[in-house]
Amino acid sequence: MTTDCSTTSTLLHLECGICSKKYDSEQLINMCSDCSRPLLARYDLKKAAETLTAESFSSRPPSLWRYEEVLPVRRKENVISLGEGWTKLHLAKRLGKEIGCENTYIKDESTNATGSFKARGLTMAVSRALELGAKELSIPSAGNAGGAMSAYAAAAGLKSHVFMPKDVPMLFQVECKELGADVTLVDGLINDCGAKAKEGVKEFGWFDVSTLKEPYRLEGKKTMGYEIAEQMSWTLPDVIIYPTGGGTGLVGMWKAFSELEEMGLITSKRPRMVCVQSTGCAPIVRAFQEGAKHATLWEGAATLADGLRVPVAVGDFLILQALRDSGGTALAVTDQEMIDFTRVMGRNTGIFPAPEGAACLAAQVRLLKDGWIKPHESVVLFNTGSGLKYAHVYV
Amino acid sequence: MTTDCSTTSTLLHLECGICSKKYDSEQLINMCSDCSRPLLARYDLKKAAETLTAESFSSRPPSLWRYEEVLPVRRKENVISLGEGWTKLHLAKRLGKEIGCENTYIKDESTNATGSFKARGLTMAVSRALELGAKELSIPSAGNAGGAMSAYAAAAGLKSHVFMPKDVPMLFQVECKELGADVTLVDGLINDCGAKAKEGVKEFGWFDVSTLKEPYRLEGKKTMGYEIAEQMSWTLPDVIIYPTGGGTGLVGMWKAFSELEEMGLITSKRPRMVCVQSTGCAPIVRAFQEGAKHATLWEGAATLADGLRVPVAVGDFLILQALRDSGGTALAVTDQEMIDFTRVMGRNTGIFPAPEGAACLAAQVRLLKDGWIKPHESVVLFNTGSGLKYAHVYV
Ligand SMILES: Cc1ncc(COP(=O)(O)O)c(C=O)c1O
Ligand SMILES: Cc1ncc(COP(=O)(O)O)c(C=O)c1O
Repeated sequence: MTTDCSTTSTLLHLECGICSKKYDSEQLINMCSDCSRPLLARYDLKKAAETLTAESFSSRPPSLWRYEEVLPVRRKENVISLGEGWTKLHLAKRLGKEIGCENTYIKDESTNATGSFKARGLTMAVSRALELGAKELSIPSAGNAGGAMSAYAAAAGLKSHVFMPKDVPMLFQVECKELGADVTLVDGLINDCGAKAKEGVKEFGWFDVSTLKEPYRLEGKKTMGYEIAEQMSWTLPDVIIYPTGGGTGLVGMWKAFSELEEMGLITSKRPRMVCVQSTGCAPIVRAFQEGAKHATLWEGAATLADGLRVPVAVGDFLILQALRDSGGTALAVTDQEMIDFTRVMGRNTGIFPAPEGAACLAAQVRLLKDGWIKPHESVVLFNTGSGLKYAHVYV
Repeated sequence: MTTDCSTTSTLLHLECGICSKKYDSEQLINMCSDCSRPLLARYDLKKAAETLTAESFSSRPPSLWRYEEVLPVRRKENVISLGEGWTKLHLAKRLGKEIGCENTYIKDESTNATGSFKARGLTMAVSRALELGAKELSIPSAGNAGGAMSAYAAAAGLKSHVFMPKDVPMLFQVECKELGADVTLVDGLINDCGAKAKEGVKEFGWFDVSTLKEPYRLEGKKTMGYEIAEQMSWTLPDVIIYPTGGGTGLVGMWKAFSELEEMGLITSKRPRMVCVQSTGCAPIVRAFQEGAKHATLWEGAATLADGLRVPVAVGDFLILQALRDSGGTALAVTDQEMIDFTRVMGRNTGIFPAPEGAACLAAQVRLLKDGWIKPHESVVLFNTGSGLKYAHVYV
């Protein structure tokens, strides 16, 4: 034990994403009490910039914790880590040639603990929940988030409760159970699971770590933006394609780019952000096309990409704003396209993607054909999880 | 492209593990032509030691490629990398307390590409096969090795052929196919798959990357030994427990420790090496107990731990020698123990282990009870793969 176990976090306070009301950061809190919308963490970026310099990174840890100054955890002993972040950004040369876009990169999130990028959000939410005194955690999950929460809760020694749609693939349930979580199957979709989870929160005082309903999963996910910037030597690609469910990753990266610019690490040039959803559940795509500020509930959501089966997102306005501010777009692909492009990515790169990752490639090919992406542009695709978790799809 | 794309490899030649006959390293080669036994890579360790110093590591890449001087690949463009090695070594405090052995560490290999430590061996074998001109690769596999080979072959742009027992879990087959491999199911066990694969090697000139039947998977696996030493600040634990099939990892670590000592990075103190197998397939345990130099074929091999269903190992004498030289031991655990200890590890650490990883914990608990391991000793367990690949076991 060192004598000073403080981190270098420069966290100042939380702020509502709609009304900008400020909240003390040192309390267990979910959303804005006025708006019932997400709270965003704000940092002393001037102070952070003093140490978070491009030169400082050569000796930082190979995980998302390398960005400690702009992460919320205050004390080192509360950092619950299982191997998350600092994932490989592959320049996919052969794939790029095949689809006619040579600067195609894949950010491969499958090597995170629990096999998906959900580890990023949950390492942060669980570490902070532990730090702020939570004893039991609860989460509604379409699959990957539940596994990640169970893992980090187990590592932290906290009890955990996972609420999943009853038709969730077996593997996702097994993962949570073997990690010691208490699993409840719900007759409905992710939003119904959320409602069910709320009961436990009310009755037993569990802390709810639903995406964007607590402030810190976003902080974990934003590190994807930091990493892309660092891995591309403090420039950004022309286009980022992201498979969007709750949208935490997309909103998080957008936040990261602002912070990076404010700290002087990047310029004001931004990528065009692309949201991919499934034709079976595309509330953000519909709202984007209609020019709406918020999205409405998608009825009868159905897709094999469990992470995209999110009929309503509490951060909808943040996603839509990022898409529009960036000059981006939103489009939906079919389940069959996801299946087909899984193997295209697999055989050309060695990455067996989740359907959500394959959806990005399908979208890229469509946007290239439409001329929205030019062949010389640099494009980063997100493979958000391991195809191993969806092997049942390919039998 | 830089002008000099040479690596810092100090590879000198290959040497038979039995008769010590030397072979030129710059040819595609499998085993000793006299003994039909494994070839070991030999380096100029004096030269390697000049740059491979403890101080040099702070700026090296967070992958197994940080040990470039003692790895065989000659040119940087042949390094086929998907995110392998430099995995987390967890001090499992809560687990340690529960089982009465506070210095229990888990080397968690589940975050490697393709979800198992097989990535280490195959990144090396495939990179070297590419470097030496192979065009098509073939492998017999109980599961994980096939997936890893398919991935690295796809990344390298090489064709691949995988031969698996026909009762191999679906997920392992899917993984290979989605990564573009040609998969053949064989009516038999891993050794029967090996025989079948040989036919293709003969007929079509494929290069055989069976474990220990080519020299470089061992070189990839040995990096586990380098990493443990580095992560423990150039000391080694009292005991290492390793789930043994072909034994490449155990033999590889043993080789790593010799090299490290020769380079002056560690002393002559060695861990006691423990080999864990399944009661349904324990040829090495039997040979160890009988004091034999070689192991005989285990008839009717059956265990849910696919990686341990290896009835005969070409490197048997190297495994047995390492166990004996280290003052180690060998023991078998039941499938039920593996299942039970999966959850014990899961809920106490956040790591959902492969049954092979759980087997190590079962063995540790047994050896603690027997007094063979003392409560104060430091023990490293290997979780060689992700439990996600075995989720079907827990339904
Ligand atoms: C593999 C995968 N990709 C994408 C998503 C959607 O992520 P987000 O909530 O950040 O939009 C999920 C969410 O469950 C997921 O599991
Ligand atoms: C998960 C797992 N653990 C252990 C082993 C055995 O490894 P080794 O061949 O190094 O003994 C295997 C081999 O297939 C495996 O897949």
